[in-house]
Amino acid sequence: MTIVITAFERSPDGGQGLARDTRVRWALEEVGQPYEVRLLSFRAKTRPAHLRLHPFGLIPTYEEGDLALFETGAIVLHIGERHAGLFPDDANARARAITWMFAAVNTVEPPILELVTARILEGDRPWADERLPLVKDRIRERLLQLSARLGDADWLDGAFSAGDLMMVSVLLRLRPSGLLDEFPTLAAYVARGEARPAYGRAFAAQRAINAP
Amino acid sequence: MTIVITAFERSPDGGQGLARDTRVRWALEEVGQPYEVRLLSFRAKTRPAHLRLHPFGLIPTYEEGDLALFETGAIVLHIGERHAGLFPDDANARARAITWMFAAVNTVEPPILELVTARILEGDRPWADERLPLVKDRIRERLLQLSARLGDADWLDGAFSAGDLMMVSVLLRLRPSGLLDEFPTLAAYVARGEARPAYGRAFAAQRAINAP
Repeated sequence: MTIVITAFERSPDGGQGLARDTRVRWALEEVGQPYEVRLLSFRAKTRPAHLRLHPFGLIPTYEEGDLALFETGAIVLHIGERHAGLFPDDANARARAITWMFAAVNTVEPPILELVTARILEGDRPWADERLPLVKDRIRERLLQLSARLGDADWLDGAFSAGDLMMVSVLLRLRPSGLLDEFPTLAAYVARGEARPAYGRAFAAQRAINAP
Repeated sequence: MTIVITAFERSPDGGQGLARDTRVRWALEEVGQPYEVRLLSFRAKTRPAHLRLHPFGLIPTYEEGDLALFETGAIVLHIGERHAGLFPDDANARARAITWMFAAVNTVEPPILELVTARILEGDRPWADERLPLVKDRIRERLLQLSARLGDADWLDGAFSAGDLMMVSVLLRLRPSGLLDEFPTLAAYVARGEARPAYGRAFAAQRAINAP
């Protein structure tokens, strides 16, 4: 069955790979599954046809025969359950990899989303300059903890897994801020993720659509 | 094997059930698994012994024989995979339930966490009063979309699932703000969750520790 995902026809980041379709493309490349992309305009995302697929009007979505999913984490988990390459065979190691997926989206990403909000939605507010350091410090707290856990390991728990795919993708959002470079351990971790051939193919595919 | 979770010996909410151990207690009650609780002081959460279990120094954690997990979403998913009662049998329906788990923690919860941050960490800042309406409006946008999708259904996708358990738990955090009452469909949905006997037992168990 053909896999079809959605992506924005013009990503707000201009092809830096930070839109969430890159995470799903990366997962599909890791497991070697071909896929098609349906491009969506910003206006189309809140139309009924898309809201039926994604109730929050976001991308990506994932369609495969009768199955329609949204939420990047759930899509990556689904891909990893169907195809080898994203989860270890051992049941306990697999549960720990899923733990890192949730840690990426529910513990590390929320303060990073606050930074995006502070810049994009509140950047012209009178409190913007004074508030930004507080937002950044809350991110630093998480990065410090993550860096301590990673230590000198290549990946978060043994071999590369969907947990690393999600964590690297979340951390990549920080690159424009310079925060990542304050933590060399994490900057090297992210670079290892980007160096994977599957990431390279996913990045190039979204870049081909979004490059100026 | 005995299941052991961690919880705070005094929850910051004084027993309203908003600490995340309640989510795991609820899941264990739904599937009828007994568990033990190891209580943790606020000072102990950043000590090495706890950081080995939870790199971000949070609760809950989950131990079962050799397996140690953190992150509520991952723990609830693990419980639902091992025991009947949290996921439908059909593989596609199960993937959709997992989609709602991720939607709860990665799309609906982040703006709610911003409200908690705005109140607790930035409540005394000069911008607090002027900024609060912006934060609340971003939550309302998500609640409106969620309410539209739920419609007059009891649960998000067929029978009650781990997706509902996570979504109801996330929405419960809004109760003190009054925002939930602006969306009667969602207020009724949350009330249905709270009316489940398993939730009642989970709430009572954490209340017994935290009641003033």
